[in-house]
Amino acid sequence: MEAVFILLVALVSVSAARYSADWSSLDGRPLPPWYDEAKLGIFIHWGVFSVPAFQSEWFWWHWQGQQPPDAQCVRFMTDHYPPGFSYPEFARRFHAQFFSPEEWADLFEASGAKYVVLTAKHHEGFTNWKSVNSWNWNSVDCGPHRDLVGELGEAVRNRSLHYGLYNSLYEWFHPLYLSDKKNGFRTQDFVMQKLLPELYNMVIRYRPELIWSDGDWEAPDTYWNSTEFLAWLYNDSPVKDTVVTNDRWGAGCACKHGGYYNCQDKYSPGQLPEHKWEKCTSVDTLSWGYRRNMKILELMDLPTIIEDLVSTVALGGNYLLNVGPTADGMIPAVFEERLRGVGAWLQVNGEAIYGSKPWRVQMENATVPVWYTSKGSSVYAIMTATPPTTTLQLLTPKTSAATEVILLGNLSPLPWAPLYPNGGLTVLLPELPCSPGRAWTLRLDGVS
Amino acid sequence: MEAVFILLVALVSVSAARYSADWSSLDGRPLPPWYDEAKLGIFIHWGVFSVPAFQSEWFWWHWQGQQPPDAQCVRFMTDHYPPGFSYPEFARRFHAQFFSPEEWADLFEASGAKYVVLTAKHHEGFTNWKSVNSWNWNSVDCGPHRDLVGELGEAVRNRSLHYGLYNSLYEWFHPLYLSDKKNGFRTQDFVMQKLLPELYNMVIRYRPELIWSDGDWEAPDTYWNSTEFLAWLYNDSPVKDTVVTNDRWGAGCACKHGGYYNCQDKYSPGQLPEHKWEKCTSVDTLSWGYRRNMKILELMDLPTIIEDLVSTVALGGNYLLNVGPTADGMIPAVFEERLRGVGAWLQVNGEAIYGSKPWRVQMENATVPVWYTSKGSSVYAIMTATPPTTTLQLLTPKTSAATEVILLGNLSPLPWAPLYPNGGLTVLLPELPCSPGRAWTLRLDGVS
Amino acid sequence: MEAVFILLVALVSVSAARYSADWSSLDGRPLPPWYDEAKLGIFIHWGVFSVPAFQSEWFWWHWQGQQPPDAQCVRFMTDHYPPGFSYPEFARRFHAQFFSPEEWADLFEASGAKYVVLTAKHHEGFTNWKSVNSWNWNSVDCGPHRDLVGELGEAVRNRSLHYGLYNSLYEWFHPLYLSDKKNGFRTQDFVMQKLLPELYNMVIRYRPELIWSDGDWEAPDTYWNSTEFLAWLYNDSPVKDTVVTNDRWGAGCACKHGGYYNCQDKYSPGQLPEHKWEKCTSVDTLSWGYRRNMKILELMDLPTIIEDLVSTVALGGNYLLNVGPTADGMIPAVFEERLRGVGAWLQVNGEAIYGSKPWRVQMENATVPVWYTSKGSSVYAIMTATPPTTTLQLLTPKTSAATEVILLGNLSPLPWAPLYPNGGLTVLLPELPCSPGRAWTLRLDGVS
Amino acid sequence: MEAVFILLVALVSVSAARYSADWSSLDGRPLPPWYDEAKLGIFIHWGVFSVPAFQSEWFWWHWQGQQPPDAQCVRFMTDHYPPGFSYPEFARRFHAQFFSPEEWADLFEASGAKYVVLTAKHHEGFTNWKSVNSWNWNSVDCGPHRDLVGELGEAVRNRSLHYGLYNSLYEWFHPLYLSDKKNGFRTQDFVMQKLLPELYNMVIRYRPELIWSDGDWEAPDTYWNSTEFLAWLYNDSPVKDTVVTNDRWGAGCACKHGGYYNCQDKYSPGQLPEHKWEKCTSVDTLSWGYRRNMKILELMDLPTIIEDLVSTVALGGNYLLNVGPTADGMIPAVFEERLRGVGAWLQVNGEAIYGSKPWRVQMENATVPVWYTSKGSSVYAIMTATPPTTTLQLLTPKTSAATEVILLGNLSPLPWAPLYPNGGLTVLLPELPCSPGRAWTLRLDGVS
Repeated sequence: MEAVFILLVALVSVSAARYSADWSSLDGRPLPPWYDEAKLGIFIHWGVFSVPAFQSEWFWWHWQGQQPPDAQCVRFMTDHYPPGFSYPEFARRFHAQFFSPEEWADLFEASGAKYVVLTAKHHEGFTNWKSVNSWNWNSVDCGPHRDLVGELGEAVRNRSLHYGLYNSLYEWFHPLYLSDKKNGFRTQDFVMQKLLPELYNMVIRYRPELIWSDGDWEAPDTYWNSTEFLAWLYNDSPVKDTVVTNDRWGAGCACKHGGYYNCQDKYSPGQLPEHKWEKCTSVDTLSWGYRRNMKILELMDLPTIIEDLVSTVALGGNYLLNVGPTADGMIPAVFEERLRGVGAWLQVNGEAIYGSKPWRVQMENATVPVWYTSKGSSVYAIMTATPPTTTLQLLTPKTSAATEVILLGNLSPLPWAPLYPNGGLTVLLPELPCSPGRAWTLRLDGVS
Repeated sequence: MEAVFILLVALVSVSAARYSADWSSLDGRPLPPWYDEAKLGIFIHWGVFSVPAFQSEWFWWHWQGQQPPDAQCVRFMTDHYPPGFSYPEFARRFHAQFFSPEEWADLFEASGAKYVVLTAKHHEGFTNWKSVNSWNWNSVDCGPHRDLVGELGEAVRNRSLHYGLYNSLYEWFHPLYLSDKKNGFRTQDFVMQKLLPELYNMVIRYRPELIWSDGDWEAPDTYWNSTEFLAWLYNDSPVKDTVVTNDRWGAGCACKHGGYYNCQDKYSPGQLPEHKWEKCTSVDTLSWGYRRNMKILELMDLPTIIEDLVSTVALGGNYLLNVGPTADGMIPAVFEERLRGVGAWLQVNGEAIYGSKPWRVQMENATVPVWYTSKGSSVYAIMTATPPTTTLQLLTPKTSAATEVILLGNLSPLPWAPLYPNGGLTVLLPELPCSPGRAWTLRLDGVS
Repeated sequence: MEAVFILLVALVSVSAARYSADWSSLDGRPLPPWYDEAKLGIFIHWGVFSVPAFQSEWFWWHWQGQQPPDAQCVRFMTDHYPPGFSYPEFARRFHAQFFSPEEWADLFEASGAKYVVLTAKHHEGFTNWKSVNSWNWNSVDCGPHRDLVGELGEAVRNRSLHYGLYNSLYEWFHPLYLSDKKNGFRTQDFVMQKLLPELYNMVIRYRPELIWSDGDWEAPDTYWNSTEFLAWLYNDSPVKDTVVTNDRWGAGCACKHGGYYNCQDKYSPGQLPEHKWEKCTSVDTLSWGYRRNMKILELMDLPTIIEDLVSTVALGGNYLLNVGPTADGMIPAVFEERLRGVGAWLQVNGEAIYGSKPWRVQMENATVPVWYTSKGSSVYAIMTATPPTTTLQLLTPKTSAATEVILLGNLSPLPWAPLYPNGGLTVLLPELPCSPGRAWTLRLDGVS
Repeated sequence: MEAVFILLVALVSVSAARYSADWSSLDGRPLPPWYDEAKLGIFIHWGVFSVPAFQSEWFWWHWQGQQPPDAQCVRFMTDHYPPGFSYPEFARRFHAQFFSPEEWADLFEASGAKYVVLTAKHHEGFTNWKSVNSWNWNSVDCGPHRDLVGELGEAVRNRSLHYGLYNSLYEWFHPLYLSDKKNGFRTQDFVMQKLLPELYNMVIRYRPELIWSDGDWEAPDTYWNSTEFLAWLYNDSPVKDTVVTNDRWGAGCACKHGGYYNCQDKYSPGQLPEHKWEKCTSVDTLSWGYRRNMKILELMDLPTIIEDLVSTVALGGNYLLNVGPTADGMIPAVFEERLRGVGAWLQVNGEAIYGSKPWRVQMENATVPVWYTSKGSSVYAIMTATPPTTTLQLLTPKTSAATEVILLGNLSPLPWAPLYPNGGLTVLLPELPCSPGRAWTLRLDGVS
C-alpha cells in the first residue's frame, strides 16, 4: 500500500521541476523559507543510551566498539551489571512511563523554539518508532511500547512547531553494516536491506520537515545512495516542498553538499558564511544524551546559551539546542529551567531574532560585546554583557536625523548622541532589568 | 568470503548429476543411506520459549498471536509480569549457564540415538546462532551469548552422531512476514531479506546433515522459494551428498514432497508406507519445549517410548524423540532417565533396530503384541508386553529344519515347536529379565 | 492475645504430669505412638536457597560465610550476577507461582508417607510464614507472598498425614546471633529477641506434631534455652500430647537427649539401637535443596531408596526422605517419580512396614540380603535383591508345623521345607513380578 | 564492648549536673550554642523511597498503608510492576552508585549551610547504616551495600559542618509496632526490641550532634520511652555536651517539649517566638524525597528560598532546607543550582545571617519588605524585593549622628536622611547588582 502511495505522489508531482540524483542539481534547491525564519530549534537525544545514561549517548561504542575500549565505561559495566549483560538488554528499562508529549511540546513552545528535532534512530540502531526493518529493536516492540516519534510529532505540530527527525545512517554494530564495512563498502547489503527501506518508510509515515542526517562519515555518499534518496525526497516525497536537510550525507559532504550546513557538532563560523548553517549544541556540555551523574558546572548556564543563540543568529545561523530526556520520559528540571529561561528572554527580545537577517556588520566590542541583526529597516544591537556604565557606544551604525533607539521591553525612546569623527552613536541606557539571560537589545531605526 | 565459497563449491560440483528446482526432479533424489540406518534421533526444542517454559513452545502465539488469545497464557503474564512486558524481554533470562555440549552429547550417545536435531530457529524467530539477519534476536547477541548451534554440533559430531537443524520457515511476528502475509504472499520481502539469506548462511556455516523444515503451512512452496533452495542444497551446498530433508516445504507438501515424510507431528502410518518416514514425538506429551510445571503423569514412561520406537521401526520409520532443555541449559533429570533407559534397552536389543529393514509382516498379536524387523536373513520378533505364560506363539514366521531362536541378551538357543496346521511356531521362553523397557526381542534365523 | 492463650493452656493443663526443664525429666517423656507407627515421612527443603539452586541449601554459607569461601560458589556469583548482588536479593525470585499445596499433599499421600516435614526456617533465617520477628525476610512479605507453612499444613492434614516443621536454631548471618557468638554465647540477645519469640509463635500458630530442630551445634543447650522450651512444649503447648521432637537441641545433645535421635544427617546405626531413631536422607545425594543442575547419576534410584527404607525400618528407625522443590513451587518430575515408586511398592509391601516392630534378628544374607520386621505373630522377610534361583534360603526363622509363607501381593501359600541341621527354611519362590523397587516381601506365620 | 563504653562514659560524667527523665528537667537544658549560630542546615531525605521516587517519600503508606489507598500510587504500581511486587523489593535498586560523600559535602559547604541532617531511618524502617536490629533492611545488607550514614558523616565533619541524623520513631509496617498499636500501645515490644536498641546504637556509633526525631504522633512519649532516652542522651551519651534535639518525642510534645521546636513541617510563627525554633522545608514543594517526575514549577526558585531563609532568621529560627537525592546517589542538578545560589548570596550577605540575633523589630514594609537581624551593635535590614525607586524608606531604626549605612558587598557608605516626624530614615541606594537571590542587605551602624 505504501508502494502505491509513492507512485501516486510521483504522478501528481510530475509537473514540478525535478532534481536529478547528483549534487550539482540537489545543491541548487532553494531552502524552504520556514527554516531560516525559525532561528531556534530544540534537539532531543533519546534512546536506549538514556538507560545507562552514563558518559554520553556514545556509551555502547565506548564500551564495546572502539579499540581499546574506554576504561570508565568498561568499569561501569563490570561494577554494576552481571557478566554477559549486553547493551540491548538495557532496552527493557527504557520505560518512558512519564513521557507526556503534550507537556514536552508545551515546554518547547514556551522555550520560543520554532522547530523540534528528535532522534528517530541514533547510531545504536534502535528506532523510536515501529520500523519493520528493526524488529525487536524499536520503541514499540521493546521498552516504552509506544510510538515516540509519532506521539511527539503530533503534539509538536498541534502547536504549529515544525517537526524534524534525526536519523543515523550508520549503525555501530549492525551485522550487515559491519559486513559491508569489512568489504570496503563495495557491498551495500545494509543500505539496501536496512537503511533505505527504513528511511523511506520513516519519511512517508511521519512526514518530517527536517531530516537531520548523521553517522555518514565512514563511507562515501555513493555507498549510502544519498543523492538518490534526496532526489526522491525533493521530487516525490510527501514533504518535497517543505523538507529541509542538513549536510551529513557521506564522507566529504559536510560543509559542502546537502541542505543547510552543520559542518561539525557545535561548529560556529568565525564570520558570516555564504551558505545557511545551523549550530547544534547541548545544554549538557559533556553529552547529548541524558547523564545520570551530570553536575551543574558541566551545564551551560542561561547567559551562555543566550549569548550563543545571539551570536549564531547574528552570523546567519540557526541554533539547535539539545536536551537529553531520562529513560523515564522526563526532561530534567534543570533543562526545563534553561528552556523556559530562553523563552522568557525571547518574549522580550524575540523581535531581534525570529525572521531576522544578518546585518552588514555582525559584531563589535566597544563598551561591551554587541551583536547585530536586522529586519526590514530596523537594526538590532544585542548586548551580551552588562555595560559597566550607563552609556553605551555603538561604533558601526550610521545615524541620521530620523534615528530612534529603544530598549526592547521599554517603550520610551532613549537619548543618544552621534559619535565623532568616525560615526556611530552613544546611547544613554536606562537601568537595565535583571534579565536572567544577561543580554539586552536595542532597536535602532533610521540608521544605516 | 562466503559468497566466494559458494562459487567454488559450484565449480567443483559441475560434473555431478544436477537437480532442477522442481518437485519432479527433487523428489527423485535418493535418500542418503545413513538416515535409514540410524533409526533413532534426539530432537531438542530450545529457545526463548524455554524461559517462560509455560504451556508449550507456542506460548508467544497463544498469548499474543491467536485470536482470541489463550486465557491461561494471558493470565500467566498478567499474574507474574509487569504490564507491557514483551516476549523478547524473556531473552535475557535465557542464561544457558549450565549448558555443557559435551555432557549433552554424552547423554545422546548413551541413549543409543544416531542423530541429533536442534531447533536452530523456531517460530519465534530467535536463532540459536549469530545470524546477521536476526540482529539482537539470537543467542550470541542476547541471553546465552553463545553459539548454541555450533557448540552442540561440534560435540555431537565428535561422537560420530549425525547433526541436523530444525528451521522454521515462518516467524509468527516478523514484521516483514506479516506484511507479506497481508499481501496474500504476493510479496516476498520476508523470504528475500530474512529467510533465505539466513538459511543459506546456516547451511554453509554449520553443514547440517539434516534440515528439519517447519512452519511452512501458511504459504505455498513458491512463496518460500523452496525448490530453488533444495536444488542448491542438493547440487551445490557443502552438504549436497549427505544432507537429508523432511517434507515441510510449503502448504500441501507434507506427505508428498521433499526428503523423508513427517506428515504431521507424532504421525504414525497404520501400515508400511512406501516412502521413508519419521515419527517425531516428545517425552513430555503436552509440549516440545520445557515446561516448568510438568508432572510425571504427563510424560511418556519408558515402556511407552520403547513400544513407540519399536513399532515405528517395524513400520519402516525413524523415531525422533524430543526433550526440552531448561533455559539454564540442563536436560531435566527425568528426561535424562528416559534417554538412558532407551540406551540401556538398545544395548541389548539394538541389533533388531539399527540398520534393520521392515519384514514382510510388521506386527501380529497372538500371545502378546509382537513387532517384526529384519536384517539379512535374520528376523526379529519384538514383544512389547510381558507374556502371561512361558510359551509364546508366533503365527507368521515359516520355520524350517534350520530354524534357530534366541532371546537377545541370552546366548543359548530357545526350544521351539512348529504350529499346525497354519504354520508359525511356539517358543519356550526363559525367565525374562526385568527390562525397564518392558520389551524383549527374539531373533529368528532360518525362517521365512 | 497470644500471651493470654498461653496462659489458658497453662491453666487447663495443670492437672497433668509435668516435665521440668532438665534433660533427666524431659528425656523420660514417652514418644507419642503415632510416630513409630508412621515409619515413612517426606522431608522438604524449600527456601530462598531454592532460587540460586546451586550446590546445596548451604550456598549462602559456602559463598559468604566459611573461610575461605567455596571457589565454585564465588565463581557462580561472579559469573552470573552483578557485583554487590546480595543473597537476600534472591528472595524476590522465590515466586512459588506453581505451588499447589493440594497437589503436593496428593503426591505425599501417594508416596505412602505418613508424615511431612517442611523447613519452616533454614539456617538462612528466612521463614516460610509471616513471622513478626523476621520482617521482610519471610515468605509473606517477600517472594511468594504466601503462607507456605500454613497452606501446606492444611492440605497435609486434610489427608490425615502428620505435619512437622523443621526449624534451625542458629542463623548463619543474623547480626544478633553473630554478636552473641562473638561474646562466646554469654549473651543471649538472639535467643531472646529472635529465636524464642518466633519459635513459640510458630508452635502456637501451626501446632506442628513434629519439631525437627537443627543448627544447634555451635552453642550449648543452655544458650538456646532448649530445656525451657521443651518443658513448655511438653507441658503447656497446644501440641503437648502429640508432638515429637528430635535430638538437635545444643552441642552434645545429638544421639543423647531430646525425642527420637537423628544423630547425624543420613546416619544409620550398625545394629538395633535402644532408642527410637530416624534416618533422614535425600533423593538428591548431593543436596537437600533443589539444584538446577542435578543429574540422574547423582540421584538415588528407586531400588536404593526401597532398600534404604527397608533396612531403616528393620533396624527400628523411621525413614525421612527429602525432596527439594523448585523456587517456582514444583516438585521436580524425577522426584515425583521416585515418590510414586515408593508408594507403589508400599501398596504391595506396606504391611511389612507400617506399624511393624523390629524382629529378634534384623538381617541375614544367605541367598540374597533379607531384612526382617514383625507385626503381631507375623514375621516379614524382605529380599532387597533378585534371587538368582527360584529357591530362597532363610536361616533364622524357626519353623513349625503351622508355618505358612506367602509372597505379599500373592494369595497362595508358597511351598517351603525346613533346613537341616541348623534350622531355617527353604522357600520355593514363584516368578517374582518386575517390581520397580526390586524388593519383595515374604510373610511368615507360625515361625519364631 | 559498646556496653562497656557506655559505662565508661557514665563514669566520667558523674560529676556533671544530671537531668532526670521528665520534661521539667529535660526542657531546662540549655541549647548548645553552635545550633543558634548556624542558622542554615541542609536536610536530606534518602531511602528506599528514592527508588520508586514517585509522589513522595510517603509512597509506601499511600500505596499500602492508608485506607483507602491513594489511587495514583496504586495505579503506578499496577501499571509498571508485576502483581505481588512488594515495596521491600525496591531496595535492591537503591544502587547509590554515584554517591560521593566528598562531592556532597563540598556542595553543602558551598551552600553556606553549617549543618547537615540525613535520614538515618525514615518511616519505612530502612536504616542507612548497618543496624543489627534491622537485618536485611538496611543500606549495608541491601542495595547500596554501603554505610551511608557513616560515609557522609565523615565527609561533612571534615569540612567542619555539624552532622545530624533524622530518625523516625514509628515504622509504618513493622510487625511489632503494628502489634503494639493494636494493643493500644500498652505493650512496648517494638520500642524495646527494635527502636531503642537501634537508637542507642546509632548515637554511640555515629555521635550525631542533632537528632531530628519524627514519627512520634501516634503514641505518647511514655510509649516511646522518650524521656529516658533523652536523659541518657543529655547525661551519659558521647554527645551529651553538644547534641541538639527537636520536639517530636510523642503525641502532644511538638511545640512544647524537647530541644528546639519544629512544631509542624514547614511551620513559621507569625511573630518572634520565645523558644528557639527551626523551619524545615523542601526545594521540591511536593515532596521531601526525590521524585522522578518533578517539574520546575513545582520547585522553589532561588528568590523564594532566600526570602524564606531571611524571614526565618529574622524571626529567630534556623532554616533547614531539604533536597532529595536520587537512588543513584546524585543530588539532582537543579537542586545543586539552588544550593549554590544560596551559597553565592550568603557569600555577600552571610554577615547578616550567621550568628545574628533577632532585632527588636522583625519586619516592616514601607517601600519593599524589609527583614531585620542584628549582631553586636549592627542592625541588618534585608530587602527581599527590588525597590521600585532609588530611595528606600526604613521606618523603624532610630538614627543618630553616628549612623552609617552600607550595602553588603559595597564598601562605600550610602547617603541617608532622617525621616520626620516619626523617625526612621531614607537611604539613597546605589544601582543594585543583579542578585540571583533578589535580596540585598543594608548594614546600619549607630542606630537603635
